[in-house]
Amino acid sequence: MNIFYSESIAENTAFFDSSESRHAVKSLRMQVGDSLLITDGLGNLFQGTMASKDGSTMTAKELKTIKKDPKPSPRLGLAFAPTKSADRFEMMVEKCVEIGVQDFYPFFCAHSERRKINEERLSKIILSAMKQSGRLYLPTAHPPLDFKKAIELCKEDAQLFIAYCGKEGLPQLNSTLLDDGEKKIIFIGPEGDFSPEEFQWATERGAHGISLGAYRLRTETAGIIGIHSLIWAGL
Amino acid sequence: MNIFYSESIAENTAFFDSSESRHAVKSLRMQVGDSLLITDGLGNLFQGTMASKDGSTMTAKELKTIKKDPKPSPRLGLAFAPTKSADRFEMMVEKCVEIGVQDFYPFFCAHSERRKINEERLSKIILSAMKQSGRLYLPTAHPPLDFKKAIELCKEDAQLFIAYCGKEGLPQLNSTLLDDGEKKIIFIGPEGDFSPEEFQWATERGAHGISLGAYRLRTETAGIIGIHSLIWAGL
Repeated sequence: MNIFYSESIAENTAFFDSSESRHAVKSLRMQVGDSLLITDGLGNLFQGTMASKDGSTMTAKELKTIKKDPKPSPRLGLAFAPTKSADRFEMMVEKCVEIGVQDFYPFFCAHSERRKINEERLSKIILSAMKQSGRLYLPTAHPPLDFKKAIELCKEDAQLFIAYCGKEGLPQLNSTLLDDGEKKIIFIGPEGDFSPEEFQWATERGAHGISLGAYRLRTETAGIIGIHSLIWAGL
Repeated sequence: MNIFYSESIAENTAFFDSSESRHAVKSLRMQVGDSLLITDGLGNLFQGTMASKDGSTMTAKELKTIKKDPKPSPRLGLAFAPTKSADRFEMMVEKCVEIGVQDFYPFFCAHSERRKINEERLSKIILSAMKQSGRLYLPTAHPPLDFKKAIELCKEDAQLFIAYCGKEGLPQLNSTLLDDGEKKIIFIGPEGDFSPEEFQWATERGAHGISLGAYRLRTETAGIIGIHSLIWAGL
């Protein structure tokens, strides 16, 4: 069954933006009185009843909490240099939402081939993947930053990992590298990888340099596999 | 540096098909006498020298072995119901080549929305992903089969896993489920999952029913995550 996202729930009424409303009313032809599944993106799943609709808005009332997910712990973040092909990094973000990433930090660095992203489109992809996968916490797409600013921001409250191909002997992700409990963020570079200076700069600020194996992974594969490795290493 | 694939190497000469030759000669404007990296898809990486070229063929001589990879062990296979959107299953295959799958078994089952695939295109994607990732064993795209025939074929020489959402209490992949050494194949169903009858039929033939977690994964995500879980569980 479809789940609808409401960012505004007050006095037992859920309000929906035009995109969610149109989807229910125009695509699914739902009617006032129909039952809806609703999430607030804050861990709650409600059942409700459509109370009003017009072309671009809709409300639901009689909300009953039917599920409450615990907050994901530890929080997982993906910091990534957007690929030249938007399809590829958007697909990576979609997959990472499905497997549990809570924060996305796009950044631009020395070898970035793309220096601009469509933030609105990225937010839509994240919302859609959250609903499709049945997750109840809406991940955050942080505004794009320069690489060094992204490192500075992320290291404030997280343990950082940086995947890098340019140095022999880096460890693969494993449980001994992971601190307890803390938020984890993995940095994935662009098609041409990080520059040696960038890698050194990040490790001097506490990021753990890691390898994702002996073979070259595309950026978007590295993102998915890096996040999934963090999950397994933490199990 | 680019790696070229030759399926015919004899008497210290490598022959290339029109696609590889055109790539070298037309796209990269390589010349007779230029140095080439060549793989036979059987674990060997050679350095050679372009000895002849015309529009659609090319040969290389003076081959020197510069790397020999050990055969991947255990062999990993992905059996999958192609998604309605060809982009999605093709992307999954590309990613799975990058992370180490050696055999692909497309199959059609009760809930399949797609009943036909372009096998030639799939082989090209596999070859391209092999070269791009620096792997030296060319994975095999097996011809599409009906689900039951695919199970029968695969169980002959492999331990089988089947990911399924329709049953509570299935274990997640973990090392205790894995037999030593044997080839492993994971079955991933279509958008509508396997039917209960199909799941039962497979488990009665020795396939291990497994869960990929509490949230809904898209088919292509399930394929990537299932394979990567097999790798981690076997580490």
